[in-house]
Amino acid sequence: MFSETIELRGHIIDSLILPKVLDQIVTHGANFKIKEIKVGQKRENQSFARIDVSAESSDALDELILRLRQHGAEVVGRANVNLAKVTDAGVFPHDFYVTTNQQTFVRLDGKEIEVRPAMMDSAIAVNRKKRTAQAVKFFDVNEGDEIVVGHQGIRVVPVQRSTSHTDIFQFINTMVDADEPKSAVIHELGRELQRAREAKGRIAVVAGPAVVRTEAGEQLERLIEMGYVDLLFAGNAFAVYDVERALFGTSLGKNPERAFAGGGHENHLRAINTIRACGGIAAAVQKKILTSGIMHACVKHKVDIVLTGSIRDEGPIPGVTTDVVEAQKIMREKLVDVTHLLLLGTVQHSRAVASMLAPTVKTVCVDIDSASVERAVEHQPLQSIGLVTDVEPFLRELVAAVRAKK
Amino acid sequence: MFSETIELRGHIIDSLILPKVLDQIVTHGANFKIKEIKVGQKRENQSFARIDVSAESSDALDELILRLRQHGAEVVGRANVNLAKVTDAGVFPHDFYVTTNQQTFVRLDGKEIEVRPAMMDSAIAVNRKKRTAQAVKFFDVNEGDEIVVGHQGIRVVPVQRSTSHTDIFQFINTMVDADEPKSAVIHELGRELQRAREAKGRIAVVAGPAVVRTEAGEQLERLIEMGYVDLLFAGNAFAVYDVERALFGTSLGKNPERAFAGGGHENHLRAINTIRACGGIAAAVQKKILTSGIMHACVKHKVDIVLTGSIRDEGPIPGVTTDVVEAQKIMREKLVDVTHLLLLGTVQHSRAVASMLAPTVKTVCVDIDSASVERAVEHQPLQSIGLVTDVEPFLRELVAAVRAKK
Amino acid sequence: MFSETIELRGHIIDSLILPKVLDQIVTHGANFKIKEIKVGQKRENQSFARIDVSAESSDALDELILRLRQHGAEVVGRANVNLAKVTDAGVFPHDFYVTTNQQTFVRLDGKEIEVRPAMMDSAIAVNRKKRTAQAVKFFDVNEGDEIVVGHQGIRVVPVQRSTSHTDIFQFINTMVDADEPKSAVIHELGRELQRAREAKGRIAVVAGPAVVRTEAGEQLERLIEMGYVDLLFAGNAFAVYDVERALFGTSLGKNPERAFAGGGHENHLRAINTIRACGGIAAAVQKKILTSGIMHACVKHKVDIVLTGSIRDEGPIPGVTTDVVEAQKIMREKLVDVTHLLLLGTVQHSRAVASMLAPTVKTVCVDIDSASVERAVEHQPLQSIGLVTDVEPFLRELVAAVRAKK
Amino acid sequence: MFSETIELRGHIIDSLILPKVLDQIVTHGANFKIKEIKVGQKRENQSFARIDVSAESSDALDELILRLRQHGAEVVGRANVNLAKVTDAGVFPHDFYVTTNQQTFVRLDGKEIEVRPAMMDSAIAVNRKKRTAQAVKFFDVNEGDEIVVGHQGIRVVPVQRSTSHTDIFQFINTMVDADEPKSAVIHELGRELQRAREAKGRIAVVAGPAVVRTEAGEQLERLIEMGYVDLLFAGNAFAVYDVERALFGTSLGKNPERAFAGGGHENHLRAINTIRACGGIAAAVQKKILTSGIMHACVKHKVDIVLTGSIRDEGPIPGVTTDVVEAQKIMREKLVDVTHLLLLGTVQHSRAVASMLAPTVKTVCVDIDSASVERAVEHQPLQSIGLVTDVEPFLRELVAAVRAKK
Repeated sequence: MFSETIELRGHIIDSLILPKVLDQIVTHGANFKIKEIKVGQKRENQSFARIDVSAESSDALDELILRLRQHGAEVVGRANVNLAKVTDAGVFPHDFYVTTNQQTFVRLDGKEIEVRPAMMDSAIAVNRKKRTAQAVKFFDVNEGDEIVVGHQGIRVVPVQRSTSHTDIFQFINTMVDADEPKSAVIHELGRELQRAREAKGRIAVVAGPAVVRTEAGEQLERLIEMGYVDLLFAGNAFAVYDVERALFGTSLGKNPERAFAGGGHENHLRAINTIRACGGIAAAVQKKILTSGIMHACVKHKVDIVLTGSIRDEGPIPGVTTDVVEAQKIMREKLVDVTHLLLLGTVQHSRAVASMLAPTVKTVCVDIDSASVERAVEHQPLQSIGLVTDVEPFLRELVAAVRAKK
Repeated sequence: MFSETIELRGHIIDSLILPKVLDQIVTHGANFKIKEIKVGQKRENQSFARIDVSAESSDALDELILRLRQHGAEVVGRANVNLAKVTDAGVFPHDFYVTTNQQTFVRLDGKEIEVRPAMMDSAIAVNRKKRTAQAVKFFDVNEGDEIVVGHQGIRVVPVQRSTSHTDIFQFINTMVDADEPKSAVIHELGRELQRAREAKGRIAVVAGPAVVRTEAGEQLERLIEMGYVDLLFAGNAFAVYDVERALFGTSLGKNPERAFAGGGHENHLRAINTIRACGGIAAAVQKKILTSGIMHACVKHKVDIVLTGSIRDEGPIPGVTTDVVEAQKIMREKLVDVTHLLLLGTVQHSRAVASMLAPTVKTVCVDIDSASVERAVEHQPLQSIGLVTDVEPFLRELVAAVRAKK
Repeated sequence: MFSETIELRGHIIDSLILPKVLDQIVTHGANFKIKEIKVGQKRENQSFARIDVSAESSDALDELILRLRQHGAEVVGRANVNLAKVTDAGVFPHDFYVTTNQQTFVRLDGKEIEVRPAMMDSAIAVNRKKRTAQAVKFFDVNEGDEIVVGHQGIRVVPVQRSTSHTDIFQFINTMVDADEPKSAVIHELGRELQRAREAKGRIAVVAGPAVVRTEAGEQLERLIEMGYVDLLFAGNAFAVYDVERALFGTSLGKNPERAFAGGGHENHLRAINTIRACGGIAAAVQKKILTSGIMHACVKHKVDIVLTGSIRDEGPIPGVTTDVVEAQKIMREKLVDVTHLLLLGTVQHSRAVASMLAPTVKTVCVDIDSASVERAVEHQPLQSIGLVTDVEPFLRELVAAVRAKK
Repeated sequence: MFSETIELRGHIIDSLILPKVLDQIVTHGANFKIKEIKVGQKRENQSFARIDVSAESSDALDELILRLRQHGAEVVGRANVNLAKVTDAGVFPHDFYVTTNQQTFVRLDGKEIEVRPAMMDSAIAVNRKKRTAQAVKFFDVNEGDEIVVGHQGIRVVPVQRSTSHTDIFQFINTMVDADEPKSAVIHELGRELQRAREAKGRIAVVAGPAVVRTEAGEQLERLIEMGYVDLLFAGNAFAVYDVERALFGTSLGKNPERAFAGGGHENHLRAINTIRACGGIAAAVQKKILTSGIMHACVKHKVDIVLTGSIRDEGPIPGVTTDVVEAQKIMREKLVDVTHLLLLGTVQHSRAVASMLAPTVKTVCVDIDSASVERAVEHQPLQSIGLVTDVEPFLRELVAAVRAKK
């Protein structure tokens, strides 16, 4: 048997860290022996555990330890990180360490450096001179960069339940299903957004075409007008649906005020043509051609708009980033100081954005499809809420909630 | 080749009857020759077609003709129906004719008698003396009853598009998907219900537990108070959810005003116990123990309540019909003079009720699951609308629509 | 502040009991202080914790303690249970205790008695003379019966992860989603069923019409023939689909071997008529009228069949229990010694059966709808597996797996 | 009242063209009068109808006629098309005609020219000198190009049901739901693919990651090896999943042969790194680093691979087109001579590809989500089949079907 000793610190019991670590050990067919455990007496006290882990082979132990580190386990007798040089630009060294979205430290010359930003599915580039560590994607690295390999010298600190329970983002089970009441959650959320705005937080919205199609656009405009949206991520299609609605009053050719009126893509294409003729959304607002709708509200209230392209787009309209790698870079940059994120009716974008989040961003996902909601929030366990419902009534109630006095 | 001549009459083109008949012939590998066709010049004129149908075997032709009859085809050279006697109570004679939910006539001694009620998946019992024909279920028949066998002497008249296009129940494609606007349809529906009430129509609602759980109950109460509900079909669970909400303010133990408050079945069971102790819903209202909620509104406004049991029920409360065959009999009886039907958030009950409808009952189905909605309305092609959405915002908007002046 | 001291015993960390208890305390706005904690050093050792819980009101503390008990917390300074007499048959005393599906003990005259069976959403009837405690439903109680009220004197022992990890029913997260590989799980399940049969376990199958409609019936027949099914729960519709397939080769009139052949309910009704004429399934097998299919295999291999009615049924065929309360009684009785349960393509029945299970029954749910699967297994956290997939390929692979040598 | 006369030709009844035209007229609140109708006596005969259409305003009539043209109606007294010049590259003239995916002709100087390719949601550029008409996207047009405006001089010829009913792509209702048998359809499809290969048709497959994740890759490899795939469209993620499976035996870190083994993104990222280090898929095959899997089979059997990027991608691997406009151009080019298309487990790509199809491409869509399937095939009404099922059993049965002798 091969064994190693690990340590866990923090709110390891009520944030589920210790149970998850023991679960991983058992699931991998390994064994544990708890050498020491101190459980904080009160909620605000931290706990500590020291555990011997043993497995049948050295490889199995290594793989297991790698996982336990991702849950916050530290290996006793800490080593420095191992680094290897990039030999081809865009290619990591063999055996590069893959990050989680949790706060991560690397030990360099006996001292710990925090990896910034906290971004999952990246490698870690270390700059020895500047003593910085950075989460990097393939296209970020150049020949000669030094990348962390193996898993020695790395410490992960999972998000833990806050001890001052002031908001609703603190629950282990945070899905509100289709047949459950949602008012109370939405009102708590309204209060959270009020607090966020006062604290100079940064609120981002990711919105899908369904927001416009289900006539929820008006509610989103109100949120924008009241100053609750700092950043809007959307696709080309979302912007075009909104412009079609503003210019022609239709949605894929359907007039929401006429039941079963025939639809079609003509107005969708004419909307694109109009914006292309103007030179872009902002120009269309300036020329008073686009005088209502969400995009108009964003321009008027200086909301930062990030539009990205997809393989299904018509157009696109000017201002859309059509290269997906370029779009990812822009999104990551814009997300750095976001504190709150609303994912509204858009599976594809939601999951893209969710994979770029720091673990502390408070995230709400709203969609009519429960599986989509679950997937969008699964990486933010103590920081996210999923609601399975129509976007329109959700936004209507949220607007009422942020308007209400505290 | 074996062949037979059929005739079609009515709005056979725009009600899709002729295309469907030709489609069936082709799909069955048979051939057709249109001998005569007269198409009504204007919308209000009827059309006529006479078609020779030929197939490779006599059996194949018979099976095909059976289907064509269900689309309204009449076989030229009409015969009288064949009848056979029931020898064992509850068992039909071999080769009994199976009804559709379309208007159906049987030819007896050279004269046609309408089968009443128009109910699908039944046999037809003919009373020679009274000259009546009745759609019957297995348990309806006794030794000696005469049942139609084979498919001679039967004429089916499918529902056809009305020529005075005054309402929204006249479209071939009547699904409103999750991402489509719904306001216009709901407002048209409001006007339709206003007309229905003036014309002394009878409006039935089939409601599932989600109506209560998503806080839509208040809206349904308003519909009841305004006199837009004559009949309520629901399960034991629906009634209990409503009572739990009225007595304890909770829904499966969850307080809708407290986010993520723990839930549980205690209050559900206590609600049942309270109603059992009172002796029933009406008694609980009379004793002023039940003073709010949907069931309370039904008692106060004399809405006819039909509660049925299911295998998953707790309790049940008094007044629930726990025998499913008995429950079907009651439902069929109550449905006889219903003109409008709202199916709200309940797959199981919706499909049960839908299978008992006359083809002219105007039907609206609302649910968050699109497949369920489609199935609930598929048997009422020119008389139904399906909306894929949350029940709560649907009902809220419907209440506003029926309140609006015409 | 009001406070009480609770104790937890067993595998309270890796079975998530301690974290859940602390989570409940925090969620309810209460506080805790861990007075003592002993964590088992090795996997097979038990742990212990003593915790002071405090809340702002006596009522809030009571409600919280009730929930903590359901997670296995014992209140220090144990009292005897309080009992109250039933005054009206079928009605529990006010404030009756509502059971979970966990192992439960009541303290009577200072000694503990186990409540049997372990069944959720019931009251507990205590027989002082026989010193027995029984989980009872409303219809089980008569005047004079003594029922547990309040929550003193009750101890709940949650299912804990087994320390001898021999099977796959030991994981916290046990859903296999539509896009995940399933072979390994199905093969482990095959081995589990082999072990179950050798150990004289009792395997029950709950099957929905989709099993027949998707042509999975043949695979289920093989499981039956190999002796892997002791008990079959199904609805009237399931049996009729199977008989239609056996008698006419069709499924709702569709011949699976002819693409897009028209369907219809005729054969469904004729199948019912045939079984009614015979007097039942077993009689039809005896008379050699029913010579293939699942029902035939059940009769031939002496599988115990329980058929229940639903509001949507045609027929029914003889042998179906149409009263749902009666059906529940039968199901509960039959489930007593079941050790393994397969829920195949049937939401309604699955949830009914799942609500009657003892917490130790190993349960597998297979359906194409992920939400249905989750709900069916949610009450059996460490004893269940959900697979989101078609039933046909699942059964085909399971048949191969149980055939394979160990 | 404003009125115009239209004519319809072809299989206008059994291909549903006449009923749809009448439905559109009624739905738009207009009126019709059928002046002349000749219905083909036999299946292979064409029919003809001349209809007066009248509406209340000139605008309403125009909008209606536009729609009727899209269903194949020709306006009597045919005019030449109107053309307008492009003044800004990338912007169409005001009032440009928007194409459907049906065969379309423009009348220039009294003679008709076919628009090529038949592609929906495009404008039509006419080259007077070469006498050609081309469907163009925004980015295709330059200053001075002449674009069709208004809707005069355009004739649309909808796909009509073939008169020689030799395949399964001829049905009006072509969805096979989750609970319906699929064997017969899959076997017919196998025969269709056999015929396609003999007739030198070109078969394209669009595949999503679920194909690899559900272990269906092996079956797709067999189709490739037998020569049934000429072209593969997929995303970066699909290729990476396949490479991860080939290199490490895992799928997002999960080993399909170990139940509930922990997963993760490490191997996914290492797979990308390996292909980046090699310089691409083909290079990795040549260097014998990639020796199995779908991508390997494609390289070995000279299948044309088109990989496109999405906003959620990691990597990407070399060879992926990351600019979505560029990717659309490549896809359109490659689709030109495709005759058969299989859409397997991929909503996003399926709809993108489906929107680029000529109306005669025979299309099959397979996915576990019924709404996705319906949307993918809705634009190919008489040329498509949708199956709601797992991809793996579908492909397994299809492989067996194409192997079977005819």
